[in-house]
Amino acid sequence: MIKTPYLLFLGDAPDMLAAKVAIGIKDWRPDASVGQFRMEGCQADLGLTDMTIDEAVAAGAKTLVIGVANRGGYISDKWKTVLIEALEKGMDIASGLHNLLRDEADIAAAAMMHGRTLFDVRVPMVEFPIANGVKRTGKRCLAVGTDCSVGKMYTGLAMEKTMHERNMKATFRPTGQTGILITGGGIPLDAVVADFMAGSVEYLTPDNDADHWDLIEGQGSLYHVSYSGVTMALVHGGQPDALVLCHEPTRTHMRGLPGYQQPSLQELRDTALALAKVGNPDCKVIGISVNTQHLSDDESAAYLAKVEAEMGLPTVDPFRNGADRLVDALADC
Amino acid sequence: MIKTPYLLFLGDAPDMLAAKVAIGIKDWRPDASVGQFRMEGCQADLGLTDMTIDEAVAAGAKTLVIGVANRGGYISDKWKTVLIEALEKGMDIASGLHNLLRDEADIAAAAMMHGRTLFDVRVPMVEFPIANGVKRTGKRCLAVGTDCSVGKMYTGLAMEKTMHERNMKATFRPTGQTGILITGGGIPLDAVVADFMAGSVEYLTPDNDADHWDLIEGQGSLYHVSYSGVTMALVHGGQPDALVLCHEPTRTHMRGLPGYQQPSLQELRDTALALAKVGNPDCKVIGISVNTQHLSDDESAAYLAKVEAEMGLPTVDPFRNGADRLVDALADC
Repeated sequence: MIKTPYLLFLGDAPDMLAAKVAIGIKDWRPDASVGQFRMEGCQADLGLTDMTIDEAVAAGAKTLVIGVANRGGYISDKWKTVLIEALEKGMDIASGLHNLLRDEADIAAAAMMHGRTLFDVRVPMVEFPIANGVKRTGKRCLAVGTDCSVGKMYTGLAMEKTMHERNMKATFRPTGQTGILITGGGIPLDAVVADFMAGSVEYLTPDNDADHWDLIEGQGSLYHVSYSGVTMALVHGGQPDALVLCHEPTRTHMRGLPGYQQPSLQELRDTALALAKVGNPDCKVIGISVNTQHLSDDESAAYLAKVEAEMGLPTVDPFRNGADRLVDALADC
Repeated sequence: MIKTPYLLFLGDAPDMLAAKVAIGIKDWRPDASVGQFRMEGCQADLGLTDMTIDEAVAAGAKTLVIGVANRGGYISDKWKTVLIEALEKGMDIASGLHNLLRDEADIAAAAMMHGRTLFDVRVPMVEFPIANGVKRTGKRCLAVGTDCSVGKMYTGLAMEKTMHERNMKATFRPTGQTGILITGGGIPLDAVVADFMAGSVEYLTPDNDADHWDLIEGQGSLYHVSYSGVTMALVHGGQPDALVLCHEPTRTHMRGLPGYQQPSLQELRDTALALAKVGNPDCKVIGISVNTQHLSDDESAAYLAKVEAEMGLPTVDPFRNGADRLVDALADC
């Protein structure tokens, strides 16, 4: 597990979009970060206290988290000066970049010399088993999307937050880099070797109390031809009792695939449920989560009402309106 | 590409089943092997000429192929004596074992010293791209199964053989270790990192002549919860124009999963076709291949006739009766 609190490193981020990981951590673990570190020219700002490495250490920061995705996932020499100072002064470093910390000789040497840990969360840390398909105790909910990047992680995190407020037993189970950095644990499913994908999901969601819910972060989409195999491993490895359908209504085509259209929510419901029933015949679709960030309040309300009427399922934007109705549906499940 | 002809190494195989890889090579590339190498106690016999390393080199063997799967995929010291002699005397070595040749210091050193190549076909040799889903020229046929190990590779190889006899343009495209050793090329899909699975299948089946068919080796099953993600990547990365359904009628449960039953051929047809149409709206199911090795001639004939009547599709055991009717259906496609 990655130690908190964090210092969020924004580097020389060209805009807020590049700081997506840091924004996720700030949105979902507001108490986990003591401050932000911005270099000259940084165009991102989380509204946290700007700190030097010395100030962050004095404030108790245990881990510097690289909260910025630069083009190509590359670790520049300017960054390295800061990262090595953090190691020297007692912080671990966590990163989800393609360019691994451990592969940079000077960073690896500094970590070893100062007894610090480098967390490259893009790389699996354990050898996963092959999935055995044995039914596990406890309950599991999986978010499946009409496309990639439609709000599956935010849906799971919002449901976990609401469930904890209600004193329900729930654990968000990250399957991607940002989710791992937000929660401090999880599996980087897209980096797992094919044969072990479903096994890694079983490993992530073990036996639990009968009234405990794992909220499994979805990845990709069954309809996204680049990543559908990853999604399939979640549907079968996760043995979900409940599915939440996730959708972003303003896309003009599948993300990164100009020739492909998103499926309808009806198509997604039927396909995902039929496949999920192979692993858990009792699986149900319990609600719909729509990412309405590109719609006005009125447009959002109208769209959600229309989908709810068409699909006969609770339909919400959990980030905009809260996840209560999805959690109500889970509780009835 | 792995150089032929081969010397098939059977080691100290405890039975014929352990020599599955060598049997596949002998069945499908009868002219590719100059002989077999058997150690003391070997209980497998392909009926090829037994040869020492010197005799194999004199007969022109270019590559020693490890045709035996020992328990745990482990390379013993007794084996190493033979393998190193082969390297010293000028042969390459190809292996699909989990225990990689390159990870054995003495084998790696001998290969380097003598300028030989080690082919660990279980490990991808290239960095695959992420799938882009762009439509490719040429035609593709994919074998999908009700379960793992139901004859998908043999179906593809049998169809390729028949198509070549008819002077049709066709290439079997291996996606597993045995297929790679049989043909000398391909991708070990189960060892590819999740994000790149579909991209590796696109890489394997590039643009081709309009009348050329790739016969893509299937893996796993959409209904096998351990490996379904791998199968999904084939269905979407392969962009098949034609699907062949593969089945083994005597299984009592899914391979390795006592709690799971095989789907019906109707279920497999509907599920696989709907998913394949995401990548290629014109995809069709063209026939059924049944592995009837555990049935008598009469039982086999009756079973094939029954399935054909139920499904309304050409239904054959291509290994027993030839693949002509499947190829007829492809030619009509």
